[in-house]
Amino acid sequence: METTEPEANVTRIMLAVNESSIKGYPHASISSRGAFEWTIQKIVRSNTSGFKLLFLHVQAPHEDGFEDMDSIYAFPEDFKTMKHSDQTRGLHLLEYFVTRCHEIGVACEAWIKEGDPKEVICREAKRMQPDLLVVGNRGLGPFQRVIAGTVSEFCVKHAECPVVSIKRRPGETPQDPVDD
Amino acid sequence: METTEPEANVTRIMLAVNESSIKGYPHASISSRGAFEWTIQKIVRSNTSGFKLLFLHVQAPHEDGFEDMDSIYAFPEDFKTMKHSDQTRGLHLLEYFVTRCHEIGVACEAWIKEGDPKEVICREAKRMQPDLLVVGNRGLGPFQRVIAGTVSEFCVKHAECPVVSIKRRPGETPQDPVDD
Repeated sequence: METTEPEANVTRIMLAVNESSIKGYPHASISSRGAFEWTIQKIVRSNTSGFKLLFLHVQAPHEDGFEDMDSIYAFPEDFKTMKHSDQTRGLHLLEYFVTRCHEIGVACEAWIKEGDPKEVICREAKRMQPDLLVVGNRGLGPFQRVIAGTVSEFCVKHAECPVVSIKRRPGETPQDPVDD
Repeated sequence: METTEPEANVTRIMLAVNESSIKGYPHASISSRGAFEWTIQKIVRSNTSGFKLLFLHVQAPHEDGFEDMDSIYAFPEDFKTMKHSDQTRGLHLLEYFVTRCHEIGVACEAWIKEGDPKEVICREAKRMQPDLLVVGNRGLGPFQRVIAGTVSEFCVKHAECPVVSIKRRPGETPQDPVDD
């Protein structure tokens, strides 16, 4: 057995996680789960006391733009309900990762922020100064990237800490590769 | 104590290393050493049996272009001597990292290839399929990058495996930041 190391000395890995964009699938995105599994299997391995995982979920203000097209807002409460459902979904997402960490025995922390994901991830990386930032990546081709944009490319370029972008495995790509 | 894991199950981390460009300093570049130290301190940590490090040094055919300006080549042997001195320097470089690994107790492999570093690193990453490729980075500004080019940016974009680029610490920047 390894001895428990003081927290000041653990490797702090920040993971930016988001929800699946697949309709009716209210869980972590394929690439978020891939980034998490890679971190556990390839980096943390059996050395659970040597690492701490920091999960950040950024809620984009208009993440549900398309779904909202069909919604009718008549009362201030309608917005509150929507905000509340966003928060519930965000918590559900983080609960998944925090539960997995507890099962594995690796320390973690998780929090939610609002804003433009790529900007907020870089800002939070600057604030938290992790040893490594892990972001998932749909592995889109250049043409699809222009349409879909990629948060991971932005973070690789702009985050002040080391960043690794984990591509989705080809076998895990959903029918529409822009989905995740 | 941890048990020794079978090699098939270790995390294989490839490190692209090069020599310092500082004249009269025939050792590993600052950014190569930084990338190595980061890998040991932040990723391998105490779990030395869980990892294997793969060191690749790429010798660019005209790496010594500037020095060669003053050289006179009169006989085929002159080229052989130069090639031989290149190889000796490359071996000296790899010896440093292999020795460090043996002291630390982490498995490793090291080899030399010739060619354009950025192309060869990506080709070797494709061949070896490491779990992670670590490359050092001088942390140059955009203007200096245009002049100096950066191998790390190319690898982040083109290597098929996960890549992390480790910036040199500001305190370690030599007088001319394009040097390394």
